[in-house]
Amino acid sequence: MLDRETAREAAGDTGGAAGRFDLHGFCRTLYPIARSITGPGVRETLGHVARHVPLEIHEVASGTPVLDWHVPEEWSIRAATIRSLSGEVLVDFAAHSLHVMGYSVPVSGVFSRAALAAHVHTLPERPGIIPYRTGYYARDWGFCMAHETWERMRDAEYRVEIDSTLAPGSLTWGEAFFPGEEAGEVLVSAHVCHPSLANDNLSGIAVATALGIAARAAQERGERRRLGLRLLFVPATIGTIAWLAQNEARLGAIRAGLVLTCLGDAGPFHYKRSRQGTALVDRAVAHVLGGGEAAHALLPFTPDGYDERQYCSPGFDLPVGCLMRGVHGRFPEYHTSEDNCDFITQGALEQSLATTQAVIDVIDGDVTFLRTDGRGEPQLGRRGLYRAISGQTTSAAASQMDLMWFLNLADGAHSLLEMAERAGVPFARLQAAARLAQAAGLVGRVAVSDAIIADTPLGAKDFPHA
Amino acid sequence: MLDRETAREAAGDTGGAAGRFDLHGFCRTLYPIARSITGPGVRETLGHVARHVPLEIHEVASGTPVLDWHVPEEWSIRAATIRSLSGEVLVDFAAHSLHVMGYSVPVSGVFSRAALAAHVHTLPERPGIIPYRTGYYARDWGFCMAHETWERMRDAEYRVEIDSTLAPGSLTWGEAFFPGEEAGEVLVSAHVCHPSLANDNLSGIAVATALGIAARAAQERGERRRLGLRLLFVPATIGTIAWLAQNEARLGAIRAGLVLTCLGDAGPFHYKRSRQGTALVDRAVAHVLGGGEAAHALLPFTPDGYDERQYCSPGFDLPVGCLMRGVHGRFPEYHTSEDNCDFITQGALEQSLATTQAVIDVIDGDVTFLRTDGRGEPQLGRRGLYRAISGQTTSAAASQMDLMWFLNLADGAHSLLEMAERAGVPFARLQAAARLAQAAGLVGRVAVSDAIIADTPLGAKDFPHA
Amino acid sequence: MLDRETAREAAGDTGGAAGRFDLHGFCRTLYPIARSITGPGVRETLGHVARHVPLEIHEVASGTPVLDWHVPEEWSIRAATIRSLSGEVLVDFAAHSLHVMGYSVPVSGVFSRAALAAHVHTLPERPGIIPYRTGYYARDWGFCMAHETWERMRDAEYRVEIDSTLAPGSLTWGEAFFPGEEAGEVLVSAHVCHPSLANDNLSGIAVATALGIAARAAQERGERRRLGLRLLFVPATIGTIAWLAQNEARLGAIRAGLVLTCLGDAGPFHYKRSRQGTALVDRAVAHVLGGGEAAHALLPFTPDGYDERQYCSPGFDLPVGCLMRGVHGRFPEYHTSEDNCDFITQGALEQSLATTQAVIDVIDGDVTFLRTDGRGEPQLGRRGLYRAISGQTTSAAASQMDLMWFLNLADGAHSLLEMAERAGVPFARLQAAARLAQAAGLVGRVAVSDAIIADTPLGAKDFPHA
Repeated sequence: MLDRETAREAAGDTGGAAGRFDLHGFCRTLYPIARSITGPGVRETLGHVARHVPLEIHEVASGTPVLDWHVPEEWSIRAATIRSLSGEVLVDFAAHSLHVMGYSVPVSGVFSRAALAAHVHTLPERPGIIPYRTGYYARDWGFCMAHETWERMRDAEYRVEIDSTLAPGSLTWGEAFFPGEEAGEVLVSAHVCHPSLANDNLSGIAVATALGIAARAAQERGERRRLGLRLLFVPATIGTIAWLAQNEARLGAIRAGLVLTCLGDAGPFHYKRSRQGTALVDRAVAHVLGGGEAAHALLPFTPDGYDERQYCSPGFDLPVGCLMRGVHGRFPEYHTSEDNCDFITQGALEQSLATTQAVIDVIDGDVTFLRTDGRGEPQLGRRGLYRAISGQTTSAAASQMDLMWFLNLADGAHSLLEMAERAGVPFARLQAAARLAQAAGLVGRVAVSDAIIADTPLGAKDFPHA
Repeated sequence: MLDRETAREAAGDTGGAAGRFDLHGFCRTLYPIARSITGPGVRETLGHVARHVPLEIHEVASGTPVLDWHVPEEWSIRAATIRSLSGEVLVDFAAHSLHVMGYSVPVSGVFSRAALAAHVHTLPERPGIIPYRTGYYARDWGFCMAHETWERMRDAEYRVEIDSTLAPGSLTWGEAFFPGEEAGEVLVSAHVCHPSLANDNLSGIAVATALGIAARAAQERGERRRLGLRLLFVPATIGTIAWLAQNEARLGAIRAGLVLTCLGDAGPFHYKRSRQGTALVDRAVAHVLGGGEAAHALLPFTPDGYDERQYCSPGFDLPVGCLMRGVHGRFPEYHTSEDNCDFITQGALEQSLATTQAVIDVIDGDVTFLRTDGRGEPQLGRRGLYRAISGQTTSAAASQMDLMWFLNLADGAHSLLEMAERAGVPFARLQAAARLAQAAGLVGRVAVSDAIIADTPLGAKDFPHA
Repeated sequence: MLDRETAREAAGDTGGAAGRFDLHGFCRTLYPIARSITGPGVRETLGHVARHVPLEIHEVASGTPVLDWHVPEEWSIRAATIRSLSGEVLVDFAAHSLHVMGYSVPVSGVFSRAALAAHVHTLPERPGIIPYRTGYYARDWGFCMAHETWERMRDAEYRVEIDSTLAPGSLTWGEAFFPGEEAGEVLVSAHVCHPSLANDNLSGIAVATALGIAARAAQERGERRRLGLRLLFVPATIGTIAWLAQNEARLGAIRAGLVLTCLGDAGPFHYKRSRQGTALVDRAVAHVLGGGEAAHALLPFTPDGYDERQYCSPGFDLPVGCLMRGVHGRFPEYHTSEDNCDFITQGALEQSLATTQAVIDVIDGDVTFLRTDGRGEPQLGRRGLYRAISGQTTSAAASQMDLMWFLNLADGAHSLLEMAERAGVPFARLQAAARLAQAAGLVGRVAVSDAIIADTPLGAKDFPHA
């Protein structure tokens, strides 16, 4: 369904602002920032997003209990170097944010090479590349560097400085909400806690930001979607756990959700299903990818990966899957200095945005209709629906057969996506048929009872800027 | 299950009268009649059927509202010609009923070739063949002819005459009902509205008539089936819609149904499933075709085709499939003068009849049994059931293993068809096992509650001649 | 999951006594005994089993009604010969228990060769082999012999003697029960009614005896399984029917069952599913065989074969399958003198025992857990579960991913086997993960309500020796 042209159009059709939004440029802007699960890097990143999307910033104090966890101390990193005793700078955090292990405690002193070695992380088999390491709960320090750098360091002693702070502070996330006509909502979640990693972090942030730009533009045009759209820019794991803990009463409103990550590489799409496996989001992604030209694979749920594992943890089990191109841990650039802005392309990001938007469109448009008089095949001829249809030849238009499928399944028991799946045609064609039938008074939409939604539905009052 | 010999036997075993019924000859008799959705052609056709089957004729006045539709005006066609101005007859309805577009309004006058061209239908790529066209609701007129005929017509003007009437009258259908022991019934439906088209029309009418002959013969022998059999000879679409509208309260009695069409060509069987997809009729046809020698394919439901689309429209959603050989619109003779009596064969019609009868036999025989003492494997030896079985070697007889399957599944929860499906043996063998077990007092039939049937079940009182 | 090493360990891990139990030697001991569905051969066989396993012997008097059947008269066979009139012994029951048809009535006299021929069973196409024949309800007599023996017997007359008794007595079975913590139980059933047939009879008896030895040893060590284990050594068909009749009120306690037979040959495993098809036992066997190295096939239920057909008869429909290597009736040695102790091997018997034990372990261990705080992914780091896991490298240990799977599915709705099926890892690894999580207080076991068990659950009081 999503051929290249449509993908380009969809990418361009994300609203006035989004039409000018440079996905790859945004990634380049964010790339140098030293993000972690807490600290100024996250806040700086959210500040960039907030220039495009109305973002509410949440801070949760260190020590706050969140489900089984506690919010950790906040980490700030200002500088880190390894110098020869003669003063030559050999490894410098200022040159690459990956050089310091995340959550390194401050250190200052002269270490023997052997003592330093216990704190050095390299990839011996890929000597030119810096690995990415963290030790959030290790109360340790470490340097990550190219193995060839370490091999060249043959002095007996080195001067080591890490100017960091690990102290009570807060954990930060950003959230934007665009209300819909109904109380239900679609959740889009991107993690914002990886330092200079482009595909695994920035690509998801950029696509989610573009979705927000389009949603804001629609809002400014006075348009409303059926479902609300919630964008979450959140540190992985602990951030998502904190969000879940603080929004537990509202989770019933989530109709579908997508974790966005690794969307900028040149590989095929990979969609990891929700734990439920056949939720609306799973079927919508399968429909959109199945109807498109892009190579893709559908993966079963596993309890590792990104924040889908939090959303799909027991007791929550939300209908949230993960849309990727490269799969976490399976591409060689993963968690190394090679996952940089050369590894991601504008074309891949745009196609990812168009695909994501198409999925959201299907979810948002997946409503149920009922024949006005409840039974039988209506007479299309006297309503001019033969002619109306014959004249239309564009691919998006409903064909005669689309209209027959729609009317045959408009029994209050089949949603549009179910119709599209059964008829084997793109969702948009069933939508076009529905519009024709609705205009002719042949069908009415089946109302969704908000009673099935959580007691405290999310709404504009909670997000005054939205 | 249905090898050639059985097929021949089944075809011959349709009762005394049916044994002599010439399926192909009947088609030849009906072929020249100019049928349409209303008018004398339908009535004449039903008159031929009524010579073999007790038929109640129903007339519904033009303008009567039926569901979303209204019964149209009645169309009569007496003559139609295109002549040269010198008087030579170039196209004559008397030569072929396809020459006039169905529901052509009367016309009389001289037309330029260009003006006439707007009313001429040909198949330029198949120049020797007349197409079939209708314009039921178009209030237009038209001629269908071989393209080579049209190519030869090079005069500047022609004299055109269509002697037709389009005026208030009625829509006609014929219906026969053979009551069964229970209130449930099997519906067999054939359309009677196509003019000189043999496979797409007459083959279904002929097979349905043969079923009626067999049912009448059985009735005369004092035999009663479990389920009633309803034969419907009805104009497609509007006729079926009218029938549904006038029988809405009784539809609950329909346990299974088959639309019969295109059953005379030499191709493999095609069965289009009901909208429900796995209804009893769908499973019965799959079982009969799957056990036979004839090539066949099972097709999913689609909301086009024949009257199954009316029976399966929303709100009704009856368990009605469509049994065909050639599939509508997919064989080159479809809706042309090549769909004539040379296109259909006696052998194909007989095999179609035998297959249809076998399907009805499975549906009618699909009852549920319960072990008399409710549990355990009974002792067959002391009842002589080892010997009784060992002595029987004909293919229809229950083998020892058939009896074991039957007794193992005679738990009140598996019908005979479910047993046959699970055991992977023909239905008739499970039936034979059931007879042995019933005769030995090992099982009893589970009664079907008529409470699940519609409030006003169809019965003999409604059809005094049945 | 069950590689050769594990299989050997499992075979050796059947307790102190079982560690020394010689499966093949036990079969050799039992081989010469002339078993039938009643009589001293069954009792002698049960006596051998009782030397290893605490066995309660049940006797049911001839004529006792059991479901649809009656217990037959008891048959004793002491001697049987065919001699030449000159006194030469040509066929002698003392040489092979298969020589006499089961349930032969006594006979003594001189018969013409032709008259004798009506009572002689051979396999003409396999002239060196003695077939196995019975006539439990035939009140006839017969000799089974190698066809070449019969071919050599060319005298006009022979002296025939069968010294047997067919008279009121009783039917015998043996039963051992090892109570578990819960009222539910696992049933293991082996038939004990075939005379000198090794695979089809003795292999199942030997494996069941070894299971009993292991269970007794565990009991003596003070260990208790979750579920009780019931071992049944029972004459096929009538014995099982008698057992079902006398235990009808208790059958609700049976959580899973296995009929054991033909477990000594060198062929691949065959598991015949229960009538239910996807019962716990069916899934447990599929999991164990699917994870092992041994070739195997899963077969659908059919109402023939061994006593699974009684356990799975209508009204009972117990979750009982049949574990075999060679399939009844399908291997050439079946029911002939070639099914002897050379046909079965110690290695095959041990692998069969290990597989059976592994299946019982899965069934016994298939419990359900719930996250202590009901929701979310717990923090493993602060509980040392990262370290605890990293240090473990043996194949049985839970990997980090196993623990993630376990915790993700510990929602009270997924049993351990369901987790193993979904994660695609061996059951034992999920069990190891469960132990780690339970020790860390992260999960609690979901209690099984005994209310779902039959009113009169089986317990130690019914089997004082157990």
